[in-house]
Amino acid sequence: MFEVAELGQAIDKDEFDHQVPHLRTRLLEIQQTLSQADFPVVVLISGSDGAGKGEMVNRLNEWLDPRYMRTFAFGDKTQDERERPDYWRFWRKLPQKGRIGLYVGSWYSDPIALRVSHRINDVELDGYLARIRLFERELADDGALVIKVWLHLSKEAQAKRLDELEANPLTSWRVTELDRKHLQTYDDFRGIAEHALRQTSSAEAPWVVVESADTNYRDITVANHILQRVEYHLQARSEQQEGDVENVPLIQRQKTLLDSLDLHQSIDKQAYHHELELWQGRLAELAREAQRQRVSMVLVLEGWDAAGKGGLIRRLVAALDARNYQIIPIAAPTDEERAHHYLWRFWRHIPRDGKVTIYDRSWYGRVLVERVEGFASRAEWMRAYSEINHFESQLVEHGTVLLKFWLHIDKDEQLSRFKEREKISYKRHKITDEDYRNRERWSDYEVAVNDMVERTSTELAPWHLIEANSKRFARVKALKIVCQQIEQRLGLASATESAAAEDIPG
Amino acid sequence: MFEVAELGQAIDKDEFDHQVPHLRTRLLEIQQTLSQADFPVVVLISGSDGAGKGEMVNRLNEWLDPRYMRTFAFGDKTQDERERPDYWRFWRKLPQKGRIGLYVGSWYSDPIALRVSHRINDVELDGYLARIRLFERELADDGALVIKVWLHLSKEAQAKRLDELEANPLTSWRVTELDRKHLQTYDDFRGIAEHALRQTSSAEAPWVVVESADTNYRDITVANHILQRVEYHLQARSEQQEGDVENVPLIQRQKTLLDSLDLHQSIDKQAYHHELELWQGRLAELAREAQRQRVSMVLVLEGWDAAGKGGLIRRLVAALDARNYQIIPIAAPTDEERAHHYLWRFWRHIPRDGKVTIYDRSWYGRVLVERVEGFASRAEWMRAYSEINHFESQLVEHGTVLLKFWLHIDKDEQLSRFKEREKISYKRHKITDEDYRNRERWSDYEVAVNDMVERTSTELAPWHLIEANSKRFARVKALKIVCQQIEQRLGLASATESAAAEDIPG
Repeated sequence: MFEVAELGQAIDKDEFDHQVPHLRTRLLEIQQTLSQADFPVVVLISGSDGAGKGEMVNRLNEWLDPRYMRTFAFGDKTQDERERPDYWRFWRKLPQKGRIGLYVGSWYSDPIALRVSHRINDVELDGYLARIRLFERELADDGALVIKVWLHLSKEAQAKRLDELEANPLTSWRVTELDRKHLQTYDDFRGIAEHALRQTSSAEAPWVVVESADTNYRDITVANHILQRVEYHLQARSEQQEGDVENVPLIQRQKTLLDSLDLHQSIDKQAYHHELELWQGRLAELAREAQRQRVSMVLVLEGWDAAGKGGLIRRLVAALDARNYQIIPIAAPTDEERAHHYLWRFWRHIPRDGKVTIYDRSWYGRVLVERVEGFASRAEWMRAYSEINHFESQLVEHGTVLLKFWLHIDKDEQLSRFKEREKISYKRHKITDEDYRNRERWSDYEVAVNDMVERTSTELAPWHLIEANSKRFARVKALKIVCQQIEQRLGLASATESAAAEDIPG
Repeated sequence: MFEVAELGQAIDKDEFDHQVPHLRTRLLEIQQTLSQADFPVVVLISGSDGAGKGEMVNRLNEWLDPRYMRTFAFGDKTQDERERPDYWRFWRKLPQKGRIGLYVGSWYSDPIALRVSHRINDVELDGYLARIRLFERELADDGALVIKVWLHLSKEAQAKRLDELEANPLTSWRVTELDRKHLQTYDDFRGIAEHALRQTSSAEAPWVVVESADTNYRDITVANHILQRVEYHLQARSEQQEGDVENVPLIQRQKTLLDSLDLHQSIDKQAYHHELELWQGRLAELAREAQRQRVSMVLVLEGWDAAGKGGLIRRLVAALDARNYQIIPIAAPTDEERAHHYLWRFWRHIPRDGKVTIYDRSWYGRVLVERVEGFASRAEWMRAYSEINHFESQLVEHGTVLLKFWLHIDKDEQLSRFKEREKISYKRHKITDEDYRNRERWSDYEVAVNDMVERTSTELAPWHLIEANSKRFARVKALKIVCQQIEQRLGLASATESAAAEDIPG
């Protein structure tokens, strides 16, 4: 989830100066409209140390009209607060309808801090998070717009920031021992924060993560996000909601994870055959061992049309025992399937222990094609992210190895593959008018794919993004990941480590 | 919560034979309409041992058209089921749109059984229950109607049933050692079940508890409930929802808890003065001790107009230190209050440790006057039950003594009190046209009060129903309860036990 905020996003000073006046005007305008609305806006500014929560709040106070906004900082509890139930202080400080409440420090601060310092355990943390879900749902049920922003700084960015502050005699006093100590527990903090965000990212109160190394980028992105969410909520409440608004990305990003992939990676034919054989052999061994240990496996293959899902599946199953796997191709649902919850048809095919199910497209259709084509409403695909996370967490808790691949190609590569297929008689049936229609909506799909990866790449079930302009490269990379993940699940020594060092990038 | 199902409800054979034909016709008709609808119906038949889950399911199969209904019994997991995630078996057996799925044994069986047999602890149980909430919300979000029926048998009824079965040579074989063993753990089971029901009774999937000692009553009540819920859901989904349907009781009951109160109870003047002094003295002591131990207290006073809330409050505060309590009279919300969540104005006045807040009317207005007068929508008051339970659980967890009183009088008594007030100049202002208008909606309020008590009388925060036709009786009874509850919270020996034996009934 935090990968989306480690891409080196930045906005230079000229661009910043260019964007800000217009942004500020729009912020003030929307606040004017909001002041007449019948709902409050709750904005949480959370995040890692040094990501600039305080600066961000100051910036928003500068850009927005403080008459319609209040800032609340929650630190250690006062005596008054200690003598009441935990949430008393939050209930008291809720903004009224038409107003924005800006929170630095919130109902998330204590649970995360308690867990990082080992004062509570995982089960207790989940209790705190369940309470948060109830609380936020109560606010949302009452009409409140809940905006939760997580300012993220990578470990490197954080270390760099401390070094820079220290190097400068004017700012070195700002670096405390606590800062250095926090840096040491960065990995713990990151894992716990990610878990907390995943457990509390609901359709009614989703988290967005914003890269914060560059303050210009951070400030503009957060302000834009608030603007957009308020606009959308106003529209949705007034029921004059247009179709157009349905497909806006959850957050506007300058660069996306998909953008960051290097599609030029490839592998020559000879090396390919060598590697393919190597990994298929390893996979065959591992699959037998998994079967022996009665560990089941679910593979999810998603990707652009003509990205090479079919070819990859053939290479995967070549290493498997035919009695042991099933491939489930997902097309439009049947009547029977349509008469059930959309997850029902995927639950049906969950493998029993020791077996493998490969989904050729999957439940992610809900947040991809169904979103883009408008088959699912915004409410439906928004809540699908948490439904899917809940579904997948049940697989992983059961002990299933769950692997999710997105095969990524660019638009030119897709076109040339379409043309190629049309030339080959036995492949011609694979290209239809629909494929060309989908192509026209490329940028809509891009938005949907980025949101999908951001919201469903969890510590339990991460997405593996595969650079697939080179089919050979993609197949070897995917096979290798499959082997690694099974090794990890079975607790085996990694054959992949040593081999990987040889010649496979990525 | 189970008190509502220990009132001795029964329907005799003639009445049963009279009602059944019409009921069956309506059930078949509604199933016909349902078969064309775009949502499935999930009906859970759960409950205590011997309450007749199996019989109930057979009865429904007899009365309903089995072509549009399927029965699923979940017992121990099959090998096939053990080898998949827990919920796989439930997902597979979900009814399709237009159909009814009837479940005996469900996602509740394992968590409750595991807890009763001490194989999981309270925190783990809450984890299971949180998963259930997610699952049921996913079903409801998809449009499913979720009906959850708990068949309840009191401990006495259960013991009696076993004795009767054993006494008869033809049925004695049906009584197993397990049955006797279960009877021994009845109290544990009851507490755990009540907790589970409370935690999972949501607006989208509320529990109803049905008294099951009399099978005629049980069968007719459950069938009627299913009928009514399906009818309502069809109406709500077709958006032709009429105002009339808003105030239907959650479940039709023959007798209610309020009906079961004996309003003739009274106490003579001399005894009253003696008792009053006794309990006020004890309360004064206890209140000082609570303050010393820094235990806070919240008293909620609800009841019919002219039921005597004001008089009771005066007798209560006579025993308290004026610096230590505040009385919050709840009238229509101010503009500021209206601009916040409805619970906000109650959170404001939560006492700090060692202090007392007395609410003269309270947050229950949401499910009483706001429901009856239509100020809150059905969705709003339905979800208010769990919002209120969540709110109150936070008070109790903090250590606050929370006491909720409903002062109950009958309609005639109310009228004579209105008349009396009109005669006394300084009381005349207390009677307005509105009071007479409210009187006209007496039966609507009765429905709302019964639903309120049923859904918010929890093990943590039970309702105390006070028979108040005699003001003297009511005051003494309420004062005594206040003393008892503070004693319990402070872990003090009960002065109330011995005194109670003397002369105060109830």
